[in-house]
Amino acid sequence: MFEYEITARDGRARAGVLRLPHGEVRTPAFMPVGTQATVKTLAPEEVAAAGAQIVLANTYHLFLRPGAELVRELGGLHRFMNWQRPILTDSGGFQVFSLAQINEVQEEGVVFQSHIDGSRHLFTPERVMDIQRSLGADVIMAFDECPPGQAERAVALEASERTLRWLHRCRQRFQEQERDGVRSGAEDRFQASPQTLFPIVQGSTFADLRRDGARRVAELGPWAGWAIGGLSVGEPKQKMYEMLEVLDPELPDDRSRYLMGVGYPDDLLEAVRRGVDLFDCVAPTRNGRNGTAWTAAEGQVNIKAARFRADAGPLDAECDCYTCRNYSRAYLRHLFVAGEVLGLRLLSLHNVRFLLRLGEKARETIEAGTFAGWAEDWLARYREAAAKRGDGAIGVTGTMRARTATEGGTG
Amino acid sequence: MFEYEITARDGRARAGVLRLPHGEVRTPAFMPVGTQATVKTLAPEEVAAAGAQIVLANTYHLFLRPGAELVRELGGLHRFMNWQRPILTDSGGFQVFSLAQINEVQEEGVVFQSHIDGSRHLFTPERVMDIQRSLGADVIMAFDECPPGQAERAVALEASERTLRWLHRCRQRFQEQERDGVRSGAEDRFQASPQTLFPIVQGSTFADLRRDGARRVAELGPWAGWAIGGLSVGEPKQKMYEMLEVLDPELPDDRSRYLMGVGYPDDLLEAVRRGVDLFDCVAPTRNGRNGTAWTAAEGQVNIKAARFRADAGPLDAECDCYTCRNYSRAYLRHLFVAGEVLGLRLLSLHNVRFLLRLGEKARETIEAGTFAGWAEDWLARYREAAAKRGDGAIGVTGTMRARTATEGGTG
Repeated sequence: MFEYEITARDGRARAGVLRLPHGEVRTPAFMPVGTQATVKTLAPEEVAAAGAQIVLANTYHLFLRPGAELVRELGGLHRFMNWQRPILTDSGGFQVFSLAQINEVQEEGVVFQSHIDGSRHLFTPERVMDIQRSLGADVIMAFDECPPGQAERAVALEASERTLRWLHRCRQRFQEQERDGVRSGAEDRFQASPQTLFPIVQGSTFADLRRDGARRVAELGPWAGWAIGGLSVGEPKQKMYEMLEVLDPELPDDRSRYLMGVGYPDDLLEAVRRGVDLFDCVAPTRNGRNGTAWTAAEGQVNIKAARFRADAGPLDAECDCYTCRNYSRAYLRHLFVAGEVLGLRLLSLHNVRFLLRLGEKARETIEAGTFAGWAEDWLARYREAAAKRGDGAIGVTGTMRARTATEGGTG
Repeated sequence: MFEYEITARDGRARAGVLRLPHGEVRTPAFMPVGTQATVKTLAPEEVAAAGAQIVLANTYHLFLRPGAELVRELGGLHRFMNWQRPILTDSGGFQVFSLAQINEVQEEGVVFQSHIDGSRHLFTPERVMDIQRSLGADVIMAFDECPPGQAERAVALEASERTLRWLHRCRQRFQEQERDGVRSGAEDRFQASPQTLFPIVQGSTFADLRRDGARRVAELGPWAGWAIGGLSVGEPKQKMYEMLEVLDPELPDDRSRYLMGVGYPDDLLEAVRRGVDLFDCVAPTRNGRNGTAWTAAEGQVNIKAARFRADAGPLDAECDCYTCRNYSRAYLRHLFVAGEVLGLRLLSLHNVRFLLRLGEKARETIEAGTFAGWAEDWLARYREAAAKRGDGAIGVTGTMRARTATEGGTG
């Protein structure tokens, strides 16, 4: 259990299988985000049919509403949200810094005000471990401090050091729970399902902090998987890619690697070529609700555009999703113009499938030994389409605030 | 084609089969409302899986947005909305009176202002026939004038008379279209699918106007089916039932009968016992979006209530819908409290299934000869639950404005 097996390599890219209590995750893989125990607008069967092997949910949101103990009483997160495949919960570290109205960082933990009702709460590494045990996800995350992408060195250093000290406490609490037989919330058909804890490497855009962080996380291991945090939070995209290159030789080669808060399509592929296996991002569902969809031939399009008024073709002629198999662009545009919920569903589903398929295709080409060329061609075409529409796909990653405006996601 | 075959009777209640170009409709049957070419929040496969044999769409809404000619260009309404079973379109008569901001009734037709952008349009009987031919539904409705439920006799008389004169013009246009081979919009796998026109009997709550109306509609026939309009528009429920009793002997026994704008569960059964076969209503989806659900044992409940916070049971223990098979009340409440779209979907789906199942059950018991007793027991239990929660299921039907606030429906 919790083993990661690499099944193929192509350059630095890897294909593998992560074995979790609720099932296997074949990587590279995108994890759709179910912030509040639902992938926004979608039913779990739709998410599974789109190819999702694992979803992410948010500790911060579920702690505030409906409460972790209630989820435990109801049989854990899997049963609560009717999702029987693996789940990963983020620790809330990212949210208390990006989403909570006020937060105060102390060595003990973070005091924050709920973005819902202004109530005050304290998250400590120990508390966050307890909450995640109650929720009962397969993979739980360490509590970290995540500074903005443009943070100065002193801020980044302090956050990285604190994250390491907190990791020590997370590990200790996790080990105590294991030793004391504290049952996880997931008790339906998995009888107190076991969990694994992933550490998060911080260090912002400073290569030496990243290297040092990775080495000191390793000392606290072994870990079934490693997360890379503090990227895709407003730094230049090239900086993000550079940090992945710095970390690649530092992370144990035989463990899964999860880049938090990423997936725009180009970032996902750039990260796969730098040795990353797992991803999550709210972009597919958030963009979908705004009427924005990724397409193979035209890049990102907004379905509300007048040019789609009488367009009888599918949203993306190269896509195999339910939306593209059954509806015209004209109908999708109609749903958005008329304010119909089905439109939000159909575009969210398409975008989720788009990223899941990108992961599948990366896996297939890695296994076939053709990844490098395929990824290069794919990226060139995507960037050409982006350049045509004049918004330049390469630039700066989304800010923390933008990433969490309506959903949780990770950091 | 368009034949209605009665397969069983129990008292005045009838079970039958209405044969339409896109499939059979076994009655009694509820028709979910897809105002803007989508049953709100639901995908067509979900509506079909819930047991819907036919859906209703609205001429008024689709004329304004996206436009009937566009729907024709895209292969007709069936293909546009990805629904391959029968469709009935309402004529827009009800909407121009209840929903349009300003309307001016002339003998020629009704001039009205769009509720969307204030633009001015003219609906005449001929124009409404042309629009419905473009949309391509299996059953299209005559253009009628629908007064409020509390209308005085003079108003009701004038509306009924005008509706009869307009029916004459509708029929004439319909016959011209048939004679001239004007193709309907539904051309995908049904090659210019044929249509049938249903007349609407008006007359408000005046028995003599209803009787006279029915007789004069018959003179313009024969008709494949008959609609009863101008009920469920703010009149006392007992008045509605009384009008159905007045009409029952007047309508040809061997044709299907459609009571427009009805279905609350009690009204549906009361109407079936008075010889009605078909129904439509926006209540299941509108209530669902408001968090209100029908249940067998507790009547109408609001899932947002605090008492459901930790309720691990299904929404309705006697229901076989997707929602009740897979989710707890606690989870459904969480979705509504957290503002998640999936909640709107799950409650809408449950309510739609609730009414469809009521139709199925009525059909089965009519066929078994046990309808009268079953309906009486069902109504007694439903009313007892309603009395317990103190809101009295029997009273006045919804007003026209309330019925159309967010959706189309019929009148």
